[in-house]
Amino acid sequence: MGGDGVRYARWDGVGRPFRIVTTDRPADLATDLAAGEVLVEIELATICGSDLHTVAGHRPTPTPTVLGHEQVGRVVATGAGASVCPGDRVVWSVTVACGDCARCTRGLEQKCLRLRKFGHEPITAGWTLSGGFATHAVLPPGTTIVSVPEDLPDVVAAPASCATATVAAVLDAAPALAGRRVLITGAGLLGVTATAMAAAAGAEVTVCDPDPARRLQAGRFGASALVTPDELPTGVDVAVELSGSTAAVAGCLAALDVGGHAVLAGTVSPGPAVALDPERLVRGLLTVTGVHNYRPLHLARAVAFLAGHHHRFPFADLVGERFGLTDIEHAVTAAGRTPALRQAIDTRR
Amino acid sequence: MGGDGVRYARWDGVGRPFRIVTTDRPADLATDLAAGEVLVEIELATICGSDLHTVAGHRPTPTPTVLGHEQVGRVVATGAGASVCPGDRVVWSVTVACGDCARCTRGLEQKCLRLRKFGHEPITAGWTLSGGFATHAVLPPGTTIVSVPEDLPDVVAAPASCATATVAAVLDAAPALAGRRVLITGAGLLGVTATAMAAAAGAEVTVCDPDPARRLQAGRFGASALVTPDELPTGVDVAVELSGSTAAVAGCLAALDVGGHAVLAGTVSPGPAVALDPERLVRGLLTVTGVHNYRPLHLARAVAFLAGHHHRFPFADLVGERFGLTDIEHAVTAAGRTPALRQAIDTRR
Repeated sequence: MGGDGVRYARWDGVGRPFRIVTTDRPADLATDLAAGEVLVEIELATICGSDLHTVAGHRPTPTPTVLGHEQVGRVVATGAGASVCPGDRVVWSVTVACGDCARCTRGLEQKCLRLRKFGHEPITAGWTLSGGFATHAVLPPGTTIVSVPEDLPDVVAAPASCATATVAAVLDAAPALAGRRVLITGAGLLGVTATAMAAAAGAEVTVCDPDPARRLQAGRFGASALVTPDELPTGVDVAVELSGSTAAVAGCLAALDVGGHAVLAGTVSPGPAVALDPERLVRGLLTVTGVHNYRPLHLARAVAFLAGHHHRFPFADLVGERFGLTDIEHAVTAAGRTPALRQAIDTRR
Repeated sequence: MGGDGVRYARWDGVGRPFRIVTTDRPADLATDLAAGEVLVEIELATICGSDLHTVAGHRPTPTPTVLGHEQVGRVVATGAGASVCPGDRVVWSVTVACGDCARCTRGLEQKCLRLRKFGHEPITAGWTLSGGFATHAVLPPGTTIVSVPEDLPDVVAAPASCATATVAAVLDAAPALAGRRVLITGAGLLGVTATAMAAAAGAEVTVCDPDPARRLQAGRFGASALVTPDELPTGVDVAVELSGSTAAVAGCLAALDVGGHAVLAGTVSPGPAVALDPERLVRGLLTVTGVHNYRPLHLARAVAFLAGHHHRFPFADLVGERFGLTDIEHAVTAAGRTPALRQAIDTRR
């Protein structure tokens, strides 16, 4: 902790530069923690595609804010009754749930009626250290916090709380995958993660992406077939849509065999409707499920999967360059230009 | 059994009258049963809406055939290895599954690759007593047969193998209903059965039907609200579509709350597509499932439900007149004209 101040990258809106702000010393923050709060020193954060969309103005976010919601860190101090201890290496959920509203009490914590989201809150609401592009974060009660093995590389662990946990929720919404024919549309970080998880579960995985480089990369994550959007298979048991493309949604529905299940998670922006044939759905015993965010158990599954499989699948290679916090502008610019799926902010540099 | 011949109503196609055919004596049939076959004497059959659609030419069926697939009967004789005994009062499944194809072995018996259907087969295929409009039926191996309590009225038991079991499958595809807000569109026999089952499970049930008489009737089956298609509610947890109307399918999707689940089972004929908004599905964590036919366990649940609840809900009142087998033409004509949801063929008259 030392005597240095905590630093965070404040973002004021589209077209405005990030500003590095220095604030209280960690020791002072530690003293001020309320019950259940956790102070974490961030090791490394990765830049999610949704952060890039926000910076480009394609996704509304209240400002001023601290962006970033994929990171790994170490607990510095805790308020009374916290579930972790100083020294624990951890990742934590994007969503902060109240735990007792009508949605939380029926297992829809990810849609809590008083939901707050790490990396998506205005500083002005009184929760300043609420994003990953910072040296430290304060995690309110209602954050899911999961311990991370010491030997899991930081670049592998950081996306657990966004891409990996979301994929765990997506596959949890599907039937058991062993021996099943699975189609995955979209080979970004979610897509290759889903490919690896499904392959590890014993599925035969076909990955569809229009980008040849992404298809090639998916081949290293256990895909048994790589196709373009014009080559979608038929007769699949489970179709997983992670691209957000309307055509891909339609393609996933069309690809299903009798009894098949499509899980859609890519479409998080408004767009055209997709034609659903109710007779085919009924006679084909088809199911279509939407997944957004994830429940607490999915973050635990995400970490367990990465810990168990990061030697088999090259997750570490998906992260391009490492930038210091003061270089965040360059990191964001680089993220838009390189084929790497993630750029990293090493907040200790 | 006696010395009288077995009789069945042979149907030769649209616009042609039923013909009552007398064939072998039951004793001779009993002697000829193959392994696993069961000879049943039918007590009473009800006329399903799909039989009426077939007779009207709206639904293709191979001919000549013996229609009827909702009935209750008593086992007369069994081939070696059958699961029931002479004297058992039983209902049986519409579908006859092979039990070892790729679909059967993964729990999709209702979509068996070698599926045969009681009440839907051509006599010429060698299985003559294959429908409910007859004094007797032969049930091949692969038929699900469920015992029926002696005190369950015949008119209540007969629809178990079609309407009731299908509804059991529909509700099995939905999450637990206790305390949930449920919308049911379509108040035919499936709709009132679903209303009763959902109400008995502790749900708050809203029933939608354009017909005021059907709405009124649904009120006797546990509905807590009765609405027209212009008055569909919002914020429902489970929407069950049993009408086959395209507008109702769209209405069910629109009515769902976050985390909601729509089960569609009414659309069994080609029709217009429904617009599906993938972003709403994803962000709303919605699920849409199609159900057609049912699995063996659903017939057992159907009988158990009717046995346990026929005193509470007036299922017996849903059947209008009883006709003898020789009056089947009148029964079919009456079914198209009266508000009763079913007409009965008392095959012993």
